[in-house]
Amino acid sequence: MLRPAALTLAVFGPGLLGGSLLHDARALNFKSLRVWARREESLGEVQSLGLADFTSTRAAEVAEGADLLVLCVPVGGMKSLAQQIAGATTAPGAVFTDVGSVKGLVMGEVAPVFTAAGAEFCGSHPMAGSDKGGLANARAGLYQNAACILTPAAIGGDAPALLHGFWRLLGSRTHVMDAATHDTAVARISHLPHVAAVITALAAMRPEPGYAAFAAGGLRDTTRVANGDPSMWCEILMENRESILPALRDLAACNAHIIESLETGDAAALNALLSEARALRASRYPDSPDAP
Amino acid sequence: MLRPAALTLAVFGPGLLGGSLLHDARALNFKSLRVWARREESLGEVQSLGLADFTSTRAAEVAEGADLLVLCVPVGGMKSLAQQIAGATTAPGAVFTDVGSVKGLVMGEVAPVFTAAGAEFCGSHPMAGSDKGGLANARAGLYQNAACILTPAAIGGDAPALLHGFWRLLGSRTHVMDAATHDTAVARISHLPHVAAVITALAAMRPEPGYAAFAAGGLRDTTRVANGDPSMWCEILMENRESILPALRDLAACNAHIIESLETGDAAALNALLSEARALRASRYPDSPDAP
Repeated sequence: MLRPAALTLAVFGPGLLGGSLLHDARALNFKSLRVWARREESLGEVQSLGLADFTSTRAAEVAEGADLLVLCVPVGGMKSLAQQIAGATTAPGAVFTDVGSVKGLVMGEVAPVFTAAGAEFCGSHPMAGSDKGGLANARAGLYQNAACILTPAAIGGDAPALLHGFWRLLGSRTHVMDAATHDTAVARISHLPHVAAVITALAAMRPEPGYAAFAAGGLRDTTRVANGDPSMWCEILMENRESILPALRDLAACNAHIIESLETGDAAALNALLSEARALRASRYPDSPDAP
Repeated sequence: MLRPAALTLAVFGPGLLGGSLLHDARALNFKSLRVWARREESLGEVQSLGLADFTSTRAAEVAEGADLLVLCVPVGGMKSLAQQIAGATTAPGAVFTDVGSVKGLVMGEVAPVFTAAGAEFCGSHPMAGSDKGGLANARAGLYQNAACILTPAAIGGDAPALLHGFWRLLGSRTHVMDAATHDTAVARISHLPHVAAVITALAAMRPEPGYAAFAAGGLRDTTRVANGDPSMWCEILMENRESILPALRDLAACNAHIIESLETGDAAALNALLSEARALRASRYPDSPDAP
């Protein structure tokens, strides 16, 4: 059982995810909160929210004495950050992790920096977020009831045990898998729906945006995640493109199948596709919310 | 100003839409409610809910003396129903309408049956509903804040004025357009999102349904409307296929564009598509609900 009062948490990058970790850790009475950001202004905001006991723009300083160190920066910026903190004088048995949504790159390029320095790293991907990012939208409870996938760098070591405890303390359900399986899974259940929302918004609204005045809840919900930050999503999609491309080709094939059933007037084929989709969805969401 | 206490309403087909009309009309103290259904069992349910003053499985009987007659059956069944009631002894100045979601067929094949009998018909399409259909899910207030599109059979006549008043009484915003414009608009804002939800559920969950255990709100919301009744949606999509096919080809082109940007690593092109989708959506939903 994890004792929050014995843990010093270091967060690198206080945005939506990092800031929400700090809100939770404060509420759980962690021993000490240490925060790194690239810009002094961000650290000022963290301080004014009462979310840190120590802040600095020097990453190695923030790492000092920490038990759990969480990289909450975009995946593209993780390797250079890792190089600054992997050899820092952390607490004995300290564990490094991240919250990136693509794990192939993290485990292939970031994890080895820690391993080479004799530090323990295990990837984390909490399946939580919002289409509204930034520290201003961070909040306690963001990780409640979310799935959190752990991708250990190696079999054995103390990192997974500490991280299971940490994420469960925040209300998440933890699962362990390798980075490749993780990337395949999130390509299907997170990145594919994002692209679907984007292309639906484009195809529905480009020709005549005014038609949307008549739309009910279907257009709103189907496109909701297209409201996510374009540069963040551009990075995620590019980083996981190896796994996303097969999913998008499947999406194209399913669309082509529906188009063909309409062109040929094959109601039985169309009905079979609609029924299969409904059954698949119901297997995950039996008590779907029922907005119009 | 419409006086509900002076109006006799006849509803043909007490499902989700027809039943909700009856709930509203009862709450608004309409003079009398008359209900037709194909099966006696359905009429028994209507009676046990206190939603009718007169019921019958003989359509012409139900039409007798009514001021406003609403066809709430699937579009495919409307013509034969129209032939049974167009010449009935309704109240003087009675108006016939429907609630079908495809208007080309209704105005092309159903409206002329009424016109030939000297009766007034004007199509209605209230943009309300639910992925859970049937009388059991009918409720007062379903039409509150929904758009309702009216498609008059001809310029002039009293039908549009009565229907504007009726739908506004139920809380809807009315708009008038011709059937072809209506079908083009709903293909983009309602039928296209439905197909997008269906193909997203298929492509996301077919290869490994178990992955969905890790999904957050994105998959749930993007696929929500795929929970709709397959046979009802099969009929709608087939009836409006002329307008839906160009929309689905646009969807395919947008998907191909995203695939190409990922294949070539063209982050600028990908970012431009994501940004355009976000801006289009924000123009309709500036205060998007913010579920994870």
